[in-house]
Amino acid sequence: MRTEIASLGEFGLIDRLTAGFSRQNPSTLTAAGDDAAVLDHGGRKTVVSTDILLEGIHFDLHYMPLKHLGYKSVAVNLSDIYAMNARPEQIVVGIAVSNRFSVEALDELYAGIRLACENYGVDLVGGDTSASNKGLLISVTAIGTATAEQLVYRHGARPGDVLCVTGDLGGAYVGLQLLEREKRLFLENPDIRPDLEDQTYILGRQLKPEARKDIVELFEQARLVPTAMIDVSDGLTSDLLHLCKASGVGALVEEALLPIHPDTYQQSLKFQVDPTTAALHGGEDYELLFTIAPGDVEKIRYMMDVKIIGEIVPAEDGVRLQSKGGNFYPLTAQGWAHF
Amino acid sequence: MRTEIASLGEFGLIDRLTAGFSRQNPSTLTAAGDDAAVLDHGGRKTVVSTDILLEGIHFDLHYMPLKHLGYKSVAVNLSDIYAMNARPEQIVVGIAVSNRFSVEALDELYAGIRLACENYGVDLVGGDTSASNKGLLISVTAIGTATAEQLVYRHGARPGDVLCVTGDLGGAYVGLQLLEREKRLFLENPDIRPDLEDQTYILGRQLKPEARKDIVELFEQARLVPTAMIDVSDGLTSDLLHLCKASGVGALVEEALLPIHPDTYQQSLKFQVDPTTAALHGGEDYELLFTIAPGDVEKIRYMMDVKIIGEIVPAEDGVRLQSKGGNFYPLTAQGWAHF
Repeated sequence: MRTEIASLGEFGLIDRLTAGFSRQNPSTLTAAGDDAAVLDHGGRKTVVSTDILLEGIHFDLHYMPLKHLGYKSVAVNLSDIYAMNARPEQIVVGIAVSNRFSVEALDELYAGIRLACENYGVDLVGGDTSASNKGLLISVTAIGTATAEQLVYRHGARPGDVLCVTGDLGGAYVGLQLLEREKRLFLENPDIRPDLEDQTYILGRQLKPEARKDIVELFEQARLVPTAMIDVSDGLTSDLLHLCKASGVGALVEEALLPIHPDTYQQSLKFQVDPTTAALHGGEDYELLFTIAPGDVEKIRYMMDVKIIGEIVPAEDGVRLQSKGGNFYPLTAQGWAHF
Repeated sequence: MRTEIASLGEFGLIDRLTAGFSRQNPSTLTAAGDDAAVLDHGGRKTVVSTDILLEGIHFDLHYMPLKHLGYKSVAVNLSDIYAMNARPEQIVVGIAVSNRFSVEALDELYAGIRLACENYGVDLVGGDTSASNKGLLISVTAIGTATAEQLVYRHGARPGDVLCVTGDLGGAYVGLQLLEREKRLFLENPDIRPDLEDQTYILGRQLKPEARKDIVELFEQARLVPTAMIDVSDGLTSDLLHLCKASGVGALVEEALLPIHPDTYQQSLKFQVDPTTAALHGGEDYELLFTIAPGDVEKIRYMMDVKIIGEIVPAEDGVRLQSKGGNFYPLTAQGWAHF
């Protein structure tokens, strides 16, 4: 019997593969099922997250400069640590490269990794370097700390909580569409010069995303601990569904409140994509989606880059979007594109 | 200008890529340059190590069953934690797989990972699952703990210390030669039945290596803290050179004291490889190479699986082998095979 991986989907596959593992160490506080694992080595809690990035799957060197790739590889991993309301302090980086790459190319990659380490204040503490038969692979594991009181999981949202998101949504997705279009044109005719239409905002969202260190610092200053949090990596809808499932709640998102940058909006329309669809399903935004107790709303009022987009409701009300026209639509995840 | 990766070698490459990173967090106790990084989150020290394994580079599914591969992927990473005299408690595992693999194949892989978790008492606490364009990739990060007093680094060996190794050497290497021979014969004539000559010992050394959890436990019982330690993954010579370089010392290894299993010896001769060469350069033994203060020799006397193979000498005396015939040969590392 042969079951195709695509038939399970990413999360079904993870659930199946990790079933049957039983916890053996009291230092293991939480395992799979959140942005990061939480460990207890007797002091502050230790938070660990890992990501693999492969050429041809997660990045395309036709338009992703190696320095940007190094930066992004680190930033997206740190985003998982911030999503626990923790502070990343170390990373380990494994790379596998074919002999197509020169040492100078790897210098560029590590220049980006170093810039991210400096900007986020984390230390590169180890890694593994290997040959590959083909292409480039980067594996990043980030390690952070937080006190038990600071830690925020996906599972803490309660009906009545206010649903918030940072920054704006959909930009990385339309940035990718623009890069993919120019790549196609280039492959058809290598003499053509790419026309990226001065779309620096959406291109930056795709090529140099930032993790929201600033938001976690604002939370601390405001003495705000969200009830639940997740980073928006797969797309707002997909990540909201994770948060709601983990918390055993539903949610109501108001379309009119979704933060969409004007450039994202305009470029979406050019690509004949509904901007709301880009914001709901785009992915790679690396913003923070979180819930707060109603009594904490005052604390976010003056956080410039935090927007209220809806509220948490009982599970039986489902996870829904209220459109600008006043209609309700269930929010459902889109498929797993890579298989 | 283009510098080929092969021209630097693995360790030269790592040195170049990680130059220019400055430490930013007091929780970072040691970064690159040992089997694992050491972090301080306010309680016991946290020890972290990572490895990447790629199909076609680190393993060959022609003869490596997926369950064994899962087991070995974990065991070799835990070996780095034990080499710090620490106890591994958690792992995170990232995999990337092409659609050539079925879910059932991944079940096998994870059955091996689970068995290793059970045997070594570690928890799988997270990971990443991705598609790949081709082949299978496994990335394992292991996290352990130790008190500051327990931790053993590579840099603590002093002239006069006694040099010891666990188990025996070279078996994994000759096991690999046997498997490679049978693979070549099979590829030439698929009707041929592999003749593995009942070499269960050396095949087991290659296909199902064990990390030396038992040794670290014996050390604790004997209240023995080695002065320096490293695991033998690249080969005794290469790893001894690392230890000596980090400690600023030389070493004298006695050929007559090298532990070689009779099966390894016999099979080496069949392959026309000097058994001493297999033991010195074979790699993948995952034994522990360590040094102890002369006053601690009594503590290892009754450790069945620990052998004294030489002594630490001043740096100016170099790292040398004294042959059975009484001659001295400098020990030098062999090249980096994968590029």
